[in-house]
Amino acid sequence: MVYVIGVGLTKVGNHWDKSLRHLAAEAAIAALEDASIEDVDYIVVANALSGVINAQENLASYVATHLGMVGVPAVKVEAAGASGGAAIALAKSLVLSGAADKVLIVGVEKMTDYTSLEDTTSALSTFIDSEYEAFPGGTLESMHAMMMRAYMKKYSVTKEEFSHLPLLMHENASTTPHAQLRFKLKPQSYASSPVIAEPITMLDLAPVSDGAAAVILSKDKGREGNVEIVSSGQATDTISTYRRKDLTQLPSVRAAFKRALEAVPDFKPDFYVIHDYSSVMGYVEVEELGLAERGKASQLFSSGEAKREGSTPINPEGGLKARGNPVGATGVYQMAEAFLQITERAEGWQVPGAKSGLVLSVGGLGANSVVHLVRGV
Amino acid sequence: MVYVIGVGLTKVGNHWDKSLRHLAAEAAIAALEDASIEDVDYIVVANALSGVINAQENLASYVATHLGMVGVPAVKVEAAGASGGAAIALAKSLVLSGAADKVLIVGVEKMTDYTSLEDTTSALSTFIDSEYEAFPGGTLESMHAMMMRAYMKKYSVTKEEFSHLPLLMHENASTTPHAQLRFKLKPQSYASSPVIAEPITMLDLAPVSDGAAAVILSKDKGREGNVEIVSSGQATDTISTYRRKDLTQLPSVRAAFKRALEAVPDFKPDFYVIHDYSSVMGYVEVEELGLAERGKASQLFSSGEAKREGSTPINPEGGLKARGNPVGATGVYQMAEAFLQITERAEGWQVPGAKSGLVLSVGGLGANSVVHLVRGV
Repeated sequence: MVYVIGVGLTKVGNHWDKSLRHLAAEAAIAALEDASIEDVDYIVVANALSGVINAQENLASYVATHLGMVGVPAVKVEAAGASGGAAIALAKSLVLSGAADKVLIVGVEKMTDYTSLEDTTSALSTFIDSEYEAFPGGTLESMHAMMMRAYMKKYSVTKEEFSHLPLLMHENASTTPHAQLRFKLKPQSYASSPVIAEPITMLDLAPVSDGAAAVILSKDKGREGNVEIVSSGQATDTISTYRRKDLTQLPSVRAAFKRALEAVPDFKPDFYVIHDYSSVMGYVEVEELGLAERGKASQLFSSGEAKREGSTPINPEGGLKARGNPVGATGVYQMAEAFLQITERAEGWQVPGAKSGLVLSVGGLGANSVVHLVRGV
Repeated sequence: MVYVIGVGLTKVGNHWDKSLRHLAAEAAIAALEDASIEDVDYIVVANALSGVINAQENLASYVATHLGMVGVPAVKVEAAGASGGAAIALAKSLVLSGAADKVLIVGVEKMTDYTSLEDTTSALSTFIDSEYEAFPGGTLESMHAMMMRAYMKKYSVTKEEFSHLPLLMHENASTTPHAQLRFKLKPQSYASSPVIAEPITMLDLAPVSDGAAAVILSKDKGREGNVEIVSSGQATDTISTYRRKDLTQLPSVRAAFKRALEAVPDFKPDFYVIHDYSSVMGYVEVEELGLAERGKASQLFSSGEAKREGSTPINPEGGLKARGNPVGATGVYQMAEAFLQITERAEGWQVPGAKSGLVLSVGGLGANSVVHLVRGV
């Protein structure tokens, strides 16, 4: 068994006053304090963009150094937006194999910084095929735009119907203390949002975010009421969108979910943490998780079912859309937030009676997916 | 137990005709063929510079896609020059924890390519502290230069005495089919080598290299004569050179070695694979491994002891210096080469009677070290 015994997180936002190292240390120290421990056997750093944005690699040693944990074995894990979820999966194996009793996972991303590439859009485009998609002018956002267009056409969905996800995410984030965009949206704001890549508009997308989150995994349960990672599943899909057979599906999400369920086929989460990098991606994800029929996800979000008090709470903290998306750190945020829900410490954003959850992290346009199933113990 | 059941590698060199994806696939397919298998449960990609040099992240999905292994769970591991060694350590835990029965580790680096940063030197400088060392003008090479100067001063060693490592490495590489620099050096070539960062000259340093290597780990032994990873150890040191107490030592190498020995205190390798990114670093490494007294490493290399037929064979394939250093792939090369030695397939570069070995991978200026102890089974 592997348990989460402590978490820490920074506010998500544009932290012009904090560098990569400060964010990582702030979250990690908070997690160590939360778990009431001072040492770990291993550090896994989750990050996706420090090379291209911060001109900094060798990130595991970098984080260990600035944490005052020099000597501790450490490694960095990258899987685009799924970096955090993948780092937790590997850390789990480190504990289960006996290589470490306690592992500190630090997810960190500092997007508002000097960038080696031209801009944040170029940095994010390292997640698609650089030679065949990015160099000819494609961007990660334009791939999401193709997905939205295909979805609209296949299911006769209007652009307005995508508003339900961002509206709910902003509503949820408005009461989440560490969220980046703590304001509610009006339907007319969505309708007049500027175009990023037709038909994707600004309010369909997660913002540019800085932030760090940390989670400590342990083979021992620690204090009463901690959280167990019951099962995990991972899967890849083609990095290149042009190789996909159907742009309205995310087979890696489906496969990761299926693998996670293999060990616990009857697992029923009380809430879902999904990876809503764009509104359409959030819709396809809930469809792959079996929460809505194909093409019908908007109803899940518009009906109230996906609210914290609904039958199928989704992203009670506000999701990538409004909590924010410090890319390589996001999966660690998701796990930390699931922990806070299950331990009833999600003050202001609590799902009533949440005892178990599903956490989904996705890299690129579904190129890499990780699912963790968690429950209180 | 965890076994290496197959390996594959490309020639190391400047492959202007092959991209990152082609190199990765070539090595991986060779390893699968070598192990006589078609499928694995997990792919771990070892790479350090694809973000800053190739503008490509999400590398695990990228490699899985181009291998025709879409769907298989995959992740990228980065630890600068120790990426390969760290990837193998994590893959070992995936096997031991039961998360995977067979793991494909693909190390790949394509350094001769478009680079998001100015040049290869800038790319390598992402391994030192970007804000406090690289931005003010420091480079990875200049940190090695400080190490060499400190070593020369402390032990009254002349510049000429550093020639013994490059001379032996080039001699070894001259008969290694996949090596990058297959020519012998004359002492006068070393003496007249151009200065890179005083007192470091070109022939002290590993070249700029492209290459990929793959290793398959399995919980089952497979065919007779495969190799077991007996024990592993990892440790970090400060990423920043200015924080070190003594530039003539590499405490992370010492600590990783000590941790690897804990489970097998009497382990005596028949040969050593070290991470000679520079001649002085190679010297300090063999001193940390207890193969030479402090300040005396040059004698180990000049006396003939470190030759393939000597009492303490070191880098029989030619080391980073002459086999080449495709950075993130190097640790996987080292493991693949140890496997070929122990299985007596190192044609032209065989250490007579090699049954066990030590593999040391180092990131940055000793910021991250990984030691694997291996033996034939």
